[in-house]
Amino acid sequence: MPTLDLSADVVTLTRQLVDIESVSLGEQAIADAVEAALRALPHLEVTRRGHTVVARTHLGRGERVVIAGHLDTVPVNGNLPSRLEDGVLHGLGTCDMKGGDAVILRLAATLPEPVRDVTYVLYEAEEIQAERNGLRLLAQSDPGLLEADFAILMEPSNAMVEAGCQGTLRVEVRTTGERAHSARSWRGVNAIHRAGEVLRRLEGYTPRRPVIDGLEYHEGLNAVFVAGGVAGNVVPDECVVTVNHRFAPDRSEEEALAWVRDFFDGYDVRVTDTAPGALPGLDRPAARAFVEAVGGEVAPKFGWTDVARFTALGVPAVNYGPGDPLFAHKADEHVPVEHLRRCEEQLRTWLSGGAA
Amino acid sequence: MPTLDLSADVVTLTRQLVDIESVSLGEQAIADAVEAALRALPHLEVTRRGHTVVARTHLGRGERVVIAGHLDTVPVNGNLPSRLEDGVLHGLGTCDMKGGDAVILRLAATLPEPVRDVTYVLYEAEEIQAERNGLRLLAQSDPGLLEADFAILMEPSNAMVEAGCQGTLRVEVRTTGERAHSARSWRGVNAIHRAGEVLRRLEGYTPRRPVIDGLEYHEGLNAVFVAGGVAGNVVPDECVVTVNHRFAPDRSEEEALAWVRDFFDGYDVRVTDTAPGALPGLDRPAARAFVEAVGGEVAPKFGWTDVARFTALGVPAVNYGPGDPLFAHKADEHVPVEHLRRCEEQLRTWLSGGAA
Repeated sequence: MPTLDLSADVVTLTRQLVDIESVSLGEQAIADAVEAALRALPHLEVTRRGHTVVARTHLGRGERVVIAGHLDTVPVNGNLPSRLEDGVLHGLGTCDMKGGDAVILRLAATLPEPVRDVTYVLYEAEEIQAERNGLRLLAQSDPGLLEADFAILMEPSNAMVEAGCQGTLRVEVRTTGERAHSARSWRGVNAIHRAGEVLRRLEGYTPRRPVIDGLEYHEGLNAVFVAGGVAGNVVPDECVVTVNHRFAPDRSEEEALAWVRDFFDGYDVRVTDTAPGALPGLDRPAARAFVEAVGGEVAPKFGWTDVARFTALGVPAVNYGPGDPLFAHKADEHVPVEHLRRCEEQLRTWLSGGAA
Repeated sequence: MPTLDLSADVVTLTRQLVDIESVSLGEQAIADAVEAALRALPHLEVTRRGHTVVARTHLGRGERVVIAGHLDTVPVNGNLPSRLEDGVLHGLGTCDMKGGDAVILRLAATLPEPVRDVTYVLYEAEEIQAERNGLRLLAQSDPGLLEADFAILMEPSNAMVEAGCQGTLRVEVRTTGERAHSARSWRGVNAIHRAGEVLRRLEGYTPRRPVIDGLEYHEGLNAVFVAGGVAGNVVPDECVVTVNHRFAPDRSEEEALAWVRDFFDGYDVRVTDTAPGALPGLDRPAARAFVEAVGGEVAPKFGWTDVARFTALGVPAVNYGPGDPLFAHKADEHVPVEHLRRCEEQLRTWLSGGAA
């Protein structure tokens, strides 16, 4: 079984984690290693569910925070093992998000008496369908393990705080017509031609950019798929435009859907999947204290992340982790060593009661 | 081996042909039966190429006509064997086009001394890709066998003359963009949205309806496929609209393509396949005589048929055969017995030198 040395520096520990391959649904080895390393620490109570590991302090502090990261990665893409070059660590998962996991494990190992009680969560299956998501399963099976005043999700965010996240909604906008042989097309009605008006509306869309808790969000409405056609000599009777709406967290899923239905008024609109946004929650004391501790700079999170799950549990949450999210899921995934060190240092200072 | 009785009436003979299954590329049995039946007739010279059978009179007449039909059908669709009910013969191939084949075989068997020399052609693989088409292969291997002053293709046309045929041209109209995560869509350019203008132009299209030799044609321009999309969370960088243009036979393939390129000016247009139309050729004496003999009524042919191959060989040709083309390729394919009898009678009269 591979082992982890939590006394090593954060860069070495990130490499150890990266070099244990853990593509989604293949997290057994890494979860075993994480569990064994955490169980060796007497100041933590460790719980395991599937390949998700939870480690908690019980110091009776007035406040509890969750610090969470997922253990799985997208598929290998010629980018293992890890490679350190000119202050940058390359390899699958360096950015998304074993660098964050290493910071979590370093804090867990080296802070026996943080000023806030901490729940460290290292979970499985974030990169695949929501049904398998370890954080989701934990919230269902053991909601008490996630109770907290504040949560930090260590998704890559350039070692800066990204607050809240936008919701996402996918719908199919369908046009219908009547089939005919294309040599006698006037006997039919072309459903693909009718989709022209759907695309015209999309082209004319102006995104809403609401400011929430001082952060400017930026919505989006995009055709992500279009499909229609029966045969090369047939006027088609159906065309489906799949549209992804990203909506700012001041709207609920229901409000966003109502807006989309109105936008495509006159068309058959069917929802395929939806996930709520998360308000930044920067008005909460725990969040405010954290933001101050790490330097005060906050950006809005445009993409959907698991922070929304915490919001749904009533726990304000932010994204804060090493790595540029633009390199997540790329063959040349990497993380600057400086991000790793800065995240570890700032979180340690905050959990030790000092100022950043 | 199944056998054919060419002394039977045309309805019985059609049933015999229908009940020999002959889906494209499975024509061996029917071609063997046709060849054997024709070889038994001493007044005909029979040639076989693949599963295409040619039978010719050599009477030294001043004029030669080709009468042709294909032996294959589209796939079986619960519509075999044949079934006769209330004067209508039902079953796969009754309409497209074993009724016409039966008329051909009846004429071949019962007219030892027609007033025009006749070349009967029963060919393979019309319903699939052009590369396998028996008439095409024959024109390449033995063009002399198709030399004639006039040709009749017995494709279903309601037992009336349909002259010429429209050409067909398929192009891919492509839009490109730039990929981005749909949560930050303003960093990309959506290729599907850009296809909106392509569909807008198609919606605004007004078909040309030129009159040629007194026949009004009716062009068409239709999206037959549209496809685009990378993933549910990605702004797509390509969208392809496949467009089928049906053009009247006063335009060549080159002219039609130039028109299409102009119509989609500003877009990437790639040709995928093209086939020329065929002028009705009703000004030629042989054609005029035939039209008079069968009653004088002529309609334009909108769909593409193998008459265009004869035109390319310099042989004026018309469609004339039993059955309503709207029922071709349908599960409830059928042919009125009256069509079968009328076609046989009118062609016999014409080939015997009488008036219809």
